[in-house]
Amino acid sequence: MPTLHFWFEFASTYSYLSVMRVEDMAQRAGVDVAWHPFWLGPIFKAQGWDSSPFNLYPVKGAYMWRDMERICAARGLPFKRPDPFPQNSVLAARTALLALRHPEGPAFCRAVYAAEFGEGQGIGDPAFLGRLLAKCGLPPALVEEANSEAGKQGLRDSVAEASRLGIFGAPSFVVEQELFWGDDRLEMALARAAA
Amino acid sequence: MPTLHFWFEFASTYSYLSVMRVEDMAQRAGVDVAWHPFWLGPIFKAQGWDSSPFNLYPVKGAYMWRDMERICAARGLPFKRPDPFPQNSVLAARTALLALRHPEGPAFCRAVYAAEFGEGQGIGDPAFLGRLLAKCGLPPALVEEANSEAGKQGLRDSVAEASRLGIFGAPSFVVEQELFWGDDRLEMALARAAA
Repeated sequence: MPTLHFWFEFASTYSYLSVMRVEDMAQRAGVDVAWHPFWLGPIFKAQGWDSSPFNLYPVKGAYMWRDMERICAARGLPFKRPDPFPQNSVLAARTALLALRHPEGPAFCRAVYAAEFGEGQGIGDPAFLGRLLAKCGLPPALVEEANSEAGKQGLRDSVAEASRLGIFGAPSFVVEQELFWGDDRLEMALARAAA
Repeated sequence: MPTLHFWFEFASTYSYLSVMRVEDMAQRAGVDVAWHPFWLGPIFKAQGWDSSPFNLYPVKGAYMWRDMERICAARGLPFKRPDPFPQNSVLAARTALLALRHPEGPAFCRAVYAAEFGEGQGIGDPAFLGRLLAKCGLPPALVEEANSEAGKQGLRDSVAEASRLGIFGAPSFVVEQELFWGDDRLEMALARAAA
């Protein structure tokens, strides 16, 4: 089965849109999904940005919130802005990398996004992530493992691989050598994978 | 008939995509198109950018060229990168504002984009713009008029109106108070206008 490599960042609003639909759409297209949580912090820093571009460019940010609101309404997704935005996503990403070694990994990722952007909850608290792991049938101890040296290295490797692939934002999709950026490009990426 | 306000910048690659399809799509949706050429220069400068973000952020730029290539191929549109990029679009925008007082205005805009991004030609030369005007059945003297004080003021007014509307990139679409950014949002903007 062809594979769609799905790169997402837990602080990213538009990643929420793709996380909630990628698996259903890929299944219909006969495509496997490889889930790759990563962290945009170092990639944005390399572009000279010390926060989300939606905070650095407020006019663009105002548009993004309205755009998200409209798209979520059209898709029947709940939407509530977390405060602060962006959330610190490092622990969630490290934890997800471990969770994704299990079949319940994608469900855990969806649960984090549903809490963050569907209910406006913070995602940085280890106890909160532990509860979501348990809810998904995964060991809550993965949160501690995520903060071990190996857990930290896992996220560093993921960021390095994303940079190598030319990824500069989230969500991104990679099919063989082709990079697609943005939830808007999910259909095109899947068509490419299925071809 | 409801109206889609279509804001485009002659140096913008993604504006090419919308310029070439907006009229057919709007007609099918039963929506009028109001064409608004503007200039991103002062708007980008207000965000601290002195060139196209695709030049300032080369990784994003590399992606944009590939993305354009794929989308143009999928839509059967010719695509050739102009050199230099971005083109100086000021005279084309001033001229288009005058051309759009005539029914042939949209055809002139399409002709400029077809030369620039379909054939990779420069668009800054007055004689070149004059030839395109003539080809579209418009008076070539509009180019001189475009550089008059009134012509310059026309573009300044257009940029001021774009800023007032919260426009920060191109193409953009405005339907009543709703702003939509990017060729990807044309369908959504038309649906909103038709509703």
